[in-house]
Amino acid sequence: MGMWIGIGRKARRCYGFDEVSLVPGKVTINPEEVDTGWQLGNLKFEVPILAAAMDGVVDTKFAIAFGKLGGLAVLNLEGIQTRYENPDEIIERIIKASPGESTRVIQSIYQEPIKENLIKQRISEIKNGKVVCAVSSIPQRAERFGEIAQKAGADVFVIQATVTTKKHISSKYKSLDLNKICQAMKIPVVVGNSVGYDVALELMETGISGLLVGIGPGAACTTREVLGIGVPQVTTTSDTAAARDFYYKKTGRYVPIITDGGMTTSGDICKAFACGADSVMVGSAFSRAEEAPGKGFHWGMATSNINLPRGTRIEAGITGTLKEILFGPSRLDDGSQNLVGALRTSMGSLGVKNIREMQLVEVIIAPTIKTEGKLFQQLRKKIV
Amino acid sequence: MGMWIGIGRKARRCYGFDEVSLVPGKVTINPEEVDTGWQLGNLKFEVPILAAAMDGVVDTKFAIAFGKLGGLAVLNLEGIQTRYENPDEIIERIIKASPGESTRVIQSIYQEPIKENLIKQRISEIKNGKVVCAVSSIPQRAERFGEIAQKAGADVFVIQATVTTKKHISSKYKSLDLNKICQAMKIPVVVGNSVGYDVALELMETGISGLLVGIGPGAACTTREVLGIGVPQVTTTSDTAAARDFYYKKTGRYVPIITDGGMTTSGDICKAFACGADSVMVGSAFSRAEEAPGKGFHWGMATSNINLPRGTRIEAGITGTLKEILFGPSRLDDGSQNLVGALRTSMGSLGVKNIREMQLVEVIIAPTIKTEGKLFQQLRKKIV
Amino acid sequence: MGMWIGIGRKARRCYGFDEVSLVPGKVTINPEEVDTGWQLGNLKFEVPILAAAMDGVVDTKFAIAFGKLGGLAVLNLEGIQTRYENPDEIIERIIKASPGESTRVIQSIYQEPIKENLIKQRISEIKNGKVVCAVSSIPQRAERFGEIAQKAGADVFVIQATVTTKKHISSKYKSLDLNKICQAMKIPVVVGNSVGYDVALELMETGISGLLVGIGPGAACTTREVLGIGVPQVTTTSDTAAARDFYYKKTGRYVPIITDGGMTTSGDICKAFACGADSVMVGSAFSRAEEAPGKGFHWGMATSNINLPRGTRIEAGITGTLKEILFGPSRLDDGSQNLVGALRTSMGSLGVKNIREMQLVEVIIAPTIKTEGKLFQQLRKKIV
Amino acid sequence: MGMWIGIGRKARRCYGFDEVSLVPGKVTINPEEVDTGWQLGNLKFEVPILAAAMDGVVDTKFAIAFGKLGGLAVLNLEGIQTRYENPDEIIERIIKASPGESTRVIQSIYQEPIKENLIKQRISEIKNGKVVCAVSSIPQRAERFGEIAQKAGADVFVIQATVTTKKHISSKYKSLDLNKICQAMKIPVVVGNSVGYDVALELMETGISGLLVGIGPGAACTTREVLGIGVPQVTTTSDTAAARDFYYKKTGRYVPIITDGGMTTSGDICKAFACGADSVMVGSAFSRAEEAPGKGFHWGMATSNINLPRGTRIEAGITGTLKEILFGPSRLDDGSQNLVGALRTSMGSLGVKNIREMQLVEVIIAPTIKTEGKLFQQLRKKIV
Repeated sequence: MGMWIGIGRKARRCYGFDEVSLVPGKVTINPEEVDTGWQLGNLKFEVPILAAAMDGVVDTKFAIAFGKLGGLAVLNLEGIQTRYENPDEIIERIIKASPGESTRVIQSIYQEPIKENLIKQRISEIKNGKVVCAVSSIPQRAERFGEIAQKAGADVFVIQATVTTKKHISSKYKSLDLNKICQAMKIPVVVGNSVGYDVALELMETGISGLLVGIGPGAACTTREVLGIGVPQVTTTSDTAAARDFYYKKTGRYVPIITDGGMTTSGDICKAFACGADSVMVGSAFSRAEEAPGKGFHWGMATSNINLPRGTRIEAGITGTLKEILFGPSRLDDGSQNLVGALRTSMGSLGVKNIREMQLVEVIIAPTIKTEGKLFQQLRKKIV
Repeated sequence: MGMWIGIGRKARRCYGFDEVSLVPGKVTINPEEVDTGWQLGNLKFEVPILAAAMDGVVDTKFAIAFGKLGGLAVLNLEGIQTRYENPDEIIERIIKASPGESTRVIQSIYQEPIKENLIKQRISEIKNGKVVCAVSSIPQRAERFGEIAQKAGADVFVIQATVTTKKHISSKYKSLDLNKICQAMKIPVVVGNSVGYDVALELMETGISGLLVGIGPGAACTTREVLGIGVPQVTTTSDTAAARDFYYKKTGRYVPIITDGGMTTSGDICKAFACGADSVMVGSAFSRAEEAPGKGFHWGMATSNINLPRGTRIEAGITGTLKEILFGPSRLDDGSQNLVGALRTSMGSLGVKNIREMQLVEVIIAPTIKTEGKLFQQLRKKIV
Repeated sequence: MGMWIGIGRKARRCYGFDEVSLVPGKVTINPEEVDTGWQLGNLKFEVPILAAAMDGVVDTKFAIAFGKLGGLAVLNLEGIQTRYENPDEIIERIIKASPGESTRVIQSIYQEPIKENLIKQRISEIKNGKVVCAVSSIPQRAERFGEIAQKAGADVFVIQATVTTKKHISSKYKSLDLNKICQAMKIPVVVGNSVGYDVALELMETGISGLLVGIGPGAACTTREVLGIGVPQVTTTSDTAAARDFYYKKTGRYVPIITDGGMTTSGDICKAFACGADSVMVGSAFSRAEEAPGKGFHWGMATSNINLPRGTRIEAGITGTLKEILFGPSRLDDGSQNLVGALRTSMGSLGVKNIREMQLVEVIIAPTIKTEGKLFQQLRKKIV
Repeated sequence: MGMWIGIGRKARRCYGFDEVSLVPGKVTINPEEVDTGWQLGNLKFEVPILAAAMDGVVDTKFAIAFGKLGGLAVLNLEGIQTRYENPDEIIERIIKASPGESTRVIQSIYQEPIKENLIKQRISEIKNGKVVCAVSSIPQRAERFGEIAQKAGADVFVIQATVTTKKHISSKYKSLDLNKICQAMKIPVVVGNSVGYDVALELMETGISGLLVGIGPGAACTTREVLGIGVPQVTTTSDTAAARDFYYKKTGRYVPIITDGGMTTSGDICKAFACGADSVMVGSAFSRAEEAPGKGFHWGMATSNINLPRGTRIEAGITGTLKEILFGPSRLDDGSQNLVGALRTSMGSLGVKNIREMQLVEVIIAPTIKTEGKLFQQLRKKIV
């Protein structure tokens, strides 16, 4: 396993969504009869999709609307919602910034300190909507914010950084003890992001209830350009699924894995499940919902980093309601709407009854030359 | 066979037309002396090309013109021709829709119910033209429409869905019994689309007379973007050809396979035969004929799906008469005209006398970097 | 050798110039001291480059200028020069045609019959310039034109078709007997184009003095799009070189091979030699010379095919004198000028003294992602 | 090791930065606690980046500013600085030339002879700035200029040509004796550029103190287009690192290798270290600094070659101060600013404490389809 990239140096070939495709089997199933549900701790969800903790995507209103439709939205405790009383007018400033200024505007807005009372307030707002409430923090503040969030009534706590490992070395500050936090919290703790079999196994052993998978593949993320780091999602998801299955066999505890980032179409979401995901986390697709606070704009969590921004403000545009994006009817044919309907139809065509069966369908390597060609054709038509 | 895409997960590398090329052998033949004929049941055709059951391509007038030139056009019984008395004015509405509206206009037009009397009428119209008449239906309506079509005088019945397998599971409706329908019908039944050796073998065993090969590769099709499903045609055709040859060896019955979709040039058609096809089904190339009802526009059969459209209205433009597109003289040098002449010249250069020999020529893997480069050059000239 | 492209079907991976690169060795040489010469029959040339028999590139004046600089230009006996008394005004019509009309204009112009007296006249004109004279014909007319050409004083006779094999099958006409023509001619006979070891060996055994290598790779050629046929030049040249070396070992006769088509830069020319070429044939690069009759335009020999044109009129633009294109000084840095100087510098950097040593340098597989990127950057700068 | 590219011909697959990515391990480290230092001879540097000897990048003022920030800038002794008293006005002429003229303007400007007194003057100017002074020459003049430079107080002498080997063959002039020059010089001698294990080993054996790695990959370099020569940097760096490690094991002397060219983002720089580099040489990234003499323009050293230019004047634009480019805060998210901060963050995420550990992190093969897609999206937005 691995190819020589230089004398004495081998590298493994890894694959992304654009490079693979799914193959139907010997049976097809009525799409209305497939089960797309998944489970996190004791919480059950009909829709196996999380909305990413991005400030252009999830605010309290969005979280309620998304929860009522059967999914789980994650509110970012490190973002605009907990730094400002009136987040809408702040988001307005980001939207109105010129493309050249946007990164700098975002950097300056995120200088405002986080207010702990706003954390409690936002969680209350979501809980008043009578939906499952998930919030996220970075590892440095996870212990403090986790405690506040749990007390305020949050149902799921997410600890998220670009790269998360069980062990973090520093002589200057005390690093997060995941074992300790998982024991202290009564609600499910989801951790990420990680890549690789070994790291996944170590993280599962700390007691986490879910694992976010994927480093560097998202549309609003430039981790690979800036840090040189990134693993394509097909390989990452497969590797982590192997760790999950091994851990389950060994301990009897099933830790669902959530593929996060890099899925731009419903086809990509279908592929993530085929590679072993239990659920997926999506950002940019939901930024296009009428209900999203960013009004068609979104930006990554690391965009605001003052010294080393690793994200771009992207204008995706509004294309429909959240309900249309999740369940259709679709007015677009490019895989950006009716994500759950597409998953159902795909499962039906592939002949699988539920997500666990979906994780076993045949995957082939088949670069999408065609798509490229289509765009070229469009370009050609306009230019040549 | 297969490469590791993740721990414990292997995937097979599959190939599309853009990735392969054909290699001449030690002999060349006068192109005028090669035989391009093929056979479906007892029907013989000089031109090994079917016109796809797309509403922008085949109406009754087109079917007659195409049949008189030696090919076989398939009329879509699920489309505009059987929903509307005056299909031309309906098609006009689709053509005149703006790019942004087109999918929605198509969705609404296909809401009109199918009229059984129009099925009979369209078949009569084609038969009055004294050509072989082929019509198509989706599996759900195949039993009913097949009976009507046969009584009305159709010569070939095509059952077509995005993915067709012998077994379809549903607790809510009775699924199609292919064995039964093949026994009931006296005319050849062609079924599709399928990919893969096993599925092809199972379908052949039901008694079908022809098999449509290919899922997701067509120009007007976005199955891969929406469902994540698709297999490139070179591999699909080769696999299915292997199943056909095995089935023939075992039973003595030869079930021709028809590669459907993804061929954008005469070169791609030549490659389909080299990969094992007995015939090909082409849509977009014929949408460019003066005789096509779409007047240069075409759209896929799944574009009209109300919940999950998987196709785009494409404007290909009119470039010549149907005769020119099939037999030349060609006024274009891009492989879009004189499809049969190109096939003859290719067969001559490759030194093969008929389609069966063509199925054995050497195929190489050779990505078309050049084509990309040409387009770039054109783009550059206009922009830079 | 070969990869599975489908069940029971293997294909060989073949390579083109864009996919490979050359690697310097342990020694470098002063570029002024390397020898670029080659030999065809008893004729010796300092410049290992032939000018292709394209009507936009070679007329009698160009042939003389090119010969005086040390190269060998081939005049097309099937083109405008032998069909019209005043070829310049005919070429003017092609140049002035709109892009949409150009193929049709070329088709109509080539309907004019060839005049045998013009064949003699053109050869005399070249010979009056006191340079080696090479002319070309298609196989169907090779016997007749070869005789005329030899009598008129031609020094080299080239027989060229898209695909040439020793054996051509037809019940309607007598095909070319290469053994016979090679014995009948006293001047070297160069034949092409071919690909592959076996075909090359068979052609060499007929007594030819040189072999043109390459099917479908040229810039003005659309053989691959139209016929599906084509082999990338790196593999083709390597295969044919292996046949040449085997034939030489067996018979003691060295038949030089001439890589023809697909070289767009001096770097590509260097790579052709590294793959085993003794000489190269170039068209588009010389169409950019002030001396070229096409005034910056060129088109392939099969563009004029009335039923199945396989070529495009390309506007390359005039960039310098023939001397500058061959020997510099170069005013451009893109590999389109000073072809011989670039070859010398490359040979010096690679540490090889002559073409025979050049045929042995290390070749690596290294896709030119960079070039793509550059163009993208240019596009981006202009558009985004 | 190697793939068949033709009969009897094998080639090795080599890799570039765009094709690989880095994978985090089981530990992360506080980025503020990693060590980015490296050593050349007895000179120690905090910043493992050299500024390339390009006239658009390094003049004496830039060299001082860069040195004060912890890096090492190389002044080109063959360029404008040593040919002209007032280099700024000359550079102004290059900047103001139209794109079509720029190569010719550069060619003519570099016709002016080099003045030895200017060599001494420029070195004094740098030394007055109280920083380490590095200057470069081509091999032909290395003996003479090396002596002058050392006497004038230079601290590092760089001998640089497109391809450098220990042995250069010429009957017309005496070639450089590296053994001799290394013995004669008391200051560290850095030599380049080279590719490959064997050549690196031979060069190290001559006594050099550092080796520049890479032929043909730079943004302003067209060596591959013109000469067909080039090896992608991932493979080149890995190969050379293997030679360095072998040589160190054998002799106890550690000769640092400096990857030169082809790094367009901080991510690429991180990858170079992961492939085995001890330091990197960067040109275009620094041409974007306010302090660069080219005011956002840069051109390669071979651009001025009168007969065979191999480089382009590129307009990169000014994006910030040199300090911002090296240490941030970054106002851009594309990996073009805060190069050292990005390296630190990458090292932290990868869990490595210093460059030597960084040389051992896991590299994967993962083509950047994503980046391509982003650009396409931008293009699409503007055009379609």
